Amino acid sequence: MRINLKETAEFLETHDNYYILTHVNPDGDTMGAGFALCYALRSKGKNANVLCSDEFPKRYGFMYENYEPQKFSPDTVVAVDVADEKLLGTPLAGYKGYVELCIDHHVSNTGYAKNLLVYPDASAACEVLYRVLSEMGIVPDRLTAECLYTGIATDTGCFRYANTTVLSHIIAAKLMECGIDAERINRDMFDRKSKERLAAEQHILSNMEYYLDDKCTITVVTLEDMKTKGFTQDEFEGTAGMTVQPEGVQIGVLIKEKDGGKFKISMRSASDIDVSAICAKFGGGGHIKAAGCTVEGELDDVKMQLLTAIAPTMGIDLWLA
Amino acid sequence: MRINLKETAEFLETHDNYYILTHVNPDGDTMGAGFALCYALRSKGKNANVLCSDEFPKRYGFMYENYEPQKFSPDTVVAVDVADEKLLGTPLAGYKGYVELCIDHHVSNTGYAKNLLVYPDASAACEVLYRVLSEMGIVPDRLTAECLYTGIATDTGCFRYANTTVLSHIIAAKLMECGIDAERINRDMFDRKSKERLAAEQHILSNMEYYLDDKCTITVVTLEDMKTKGFTQDEFEGTAGMTVQPEGVQIGVLIKEKDGGKFKISMRSASDIDVSAICAKFGGGGHIKAAGCTVEGELDDVKMQLLTAIAPTMGIDLWLA
Repeated sequence: MRINLKETAEFLETHDNYYILTHVNPDGDTMGAGFALCYALRSKGKNANVLCSDEFPKRYGFMYENYEPQKFSPDTVVAVDVADEKLLGTPLAGYKGYVELCIDHHVSNTGYAKNLLVYPDASAACEVLYRVLSEMGIVPDRLTAECLYTGIATDTGCFRYANTTVLSHIIAAKLMECGIDAERINRDMFDRKSKERLAAEQHILSNMEYYLDDKCTITVVTLEDMKTKGFTQDEFEGTAGMTVQPEGVQIGVLIKEKDGGKFKISMRSASDIDVSAICAKFGGGGHIKAAGCTVEGELDDVKMQLLTAIAPTMGIDLWLA
Repeated sequence: MRINLKETAEFLETHDNYYILTHVNPDGDTMGAGFALCYALRSKGKNANVLCSDEFPKRYGFMYENYEPQKFSPDTVVAVDVADEKLLGTPLAGYKGYVELCIDHHVSNTGYAKNLLVYPDASAACEVLYRVLSEMGIVPDRLTAECLYTGIATDTGCFRYANTTVLSHIIAAKLMECGIDAERINRDMFDRKSKERLAAEQHILSNMEYYLDDKCTITVVTLEDMKTKGFTQDEFEGTAGMTVQPEGVQIGVLIKEKDGGKFKISMRSASDIDVSAICAKFGGGGHIKAAGCTVEGELDDVKMQLLTAIAPTMGIDLWLA
């Protein structure tokens, strides 16, 4: 059942002994919303713990450095930023069917919770949660505000992505009034990278090839690269965006070799060209500006297939180019 | 003479035929403030042109793609984001002593203008100008709002730096209400880079050396690198921040070889260590988190001198390390 802000605030005020569930592969938004809700509930004298199927990532260590799980018997199960029960992960799978309240911003939320507060226009679950806490008359303390800010900052790429709204900025302003150290958070979230990640970025910069009047880049990561440079898949997560960094590039392609002669393609658009339509030709899909597919064959042939599909979207005749 | 918001608004309302001066090496803030003020004044039926000693950079092309200089005899000279008359540059040097109004945010403003509106706590001149326009009752049109947003976004690193305030976010929210395409602006300002810049970034990533328990990085750009890779100084502007990207690194050093056996040192801190104090030992200076100096000698000796000065700030005994 969909509920509104006021009903959510009433729910939280009238219940106690909370288990707050976050999603697998926890990101800044589920972590931020989980701990912010936990600290806010504890500040009202209630019992609350944050649960996750995965370990809390060190990246968000400031959120939980003084956090201790409380000992109590749970009465109320709440999920934050969890669009689908499947995303609770195996260790928390026992809570499926028992989530009484979900606070989320995913348009794709499956409605598994008994009570659902979802604002699909919100940039982050933390944005929705901030509004809930305001409704409850709670002014976040500094740590709670830092958790909420982190969720909004990470989900919006620090106010850069299209999901950033007027309200995202207004809430950021309110959170800054709570005395947060936004500079430190942003440095840790956006400027700090593992050595392995930096090596992966270097690989992409070093191996970027230009095609189609320099309007298209292709970058390849082979199994051999993975082995010799010691890369894991993790290091390349989110790097596809780098393929459209060069000025003038409209489409960027990241090709990752997989076992069995398969290549995983990530395609990005920095123009109006719809890359999901291109990827659909290879049985893939996605969004207008970010899509993917899997292609089999020899690497050079795979590149040629992709360029043949991409060229017409730029008005280029590949055989004359 | 320092004037306030109201007096600035009155000044702009009671004058006409404006030459708006921007600073040399124009950045997003001086460009954004210049064109925003120009469009706002024109919307009030006044004559206004934007002047710069340098060409308007293509990077900010959207600000002036339909801009045409008007023909009129100037009565009022205004400077935006220009902290010192020297920064007007040679072609505009003739206006020295004739600037009647300066709108700025630099604490270092020399007070050269007959009337000065400066808010040193503002993140950008565009933030100050937004407040002036509000005082005048002007609601920015979309293009004017995009100019103002660009100034705030570029001067705050998209709301990431310590100069970002509550008001920066509130003004960003107001500008988003004017219908700006913040995503496109941010992509163009932050995600798009020239091939040469990307090559410079790759050079830094490839040549980063780790010292002092991996808490310090040193990256060198030699004259030979500049020559063989075809780099100019421009490509390395603002790259010193990359030296503290790796997780755990507290101090990053970028060494650029200059003629005559000299090395220009840029030092960055990602901790509480004050790098201006370290650079001061070599006759340099700067800020706590960003400083510089020039050191002479053989490269290996220069590195050792720097590490010898840095090690104690991390509690490391270099000779035992």
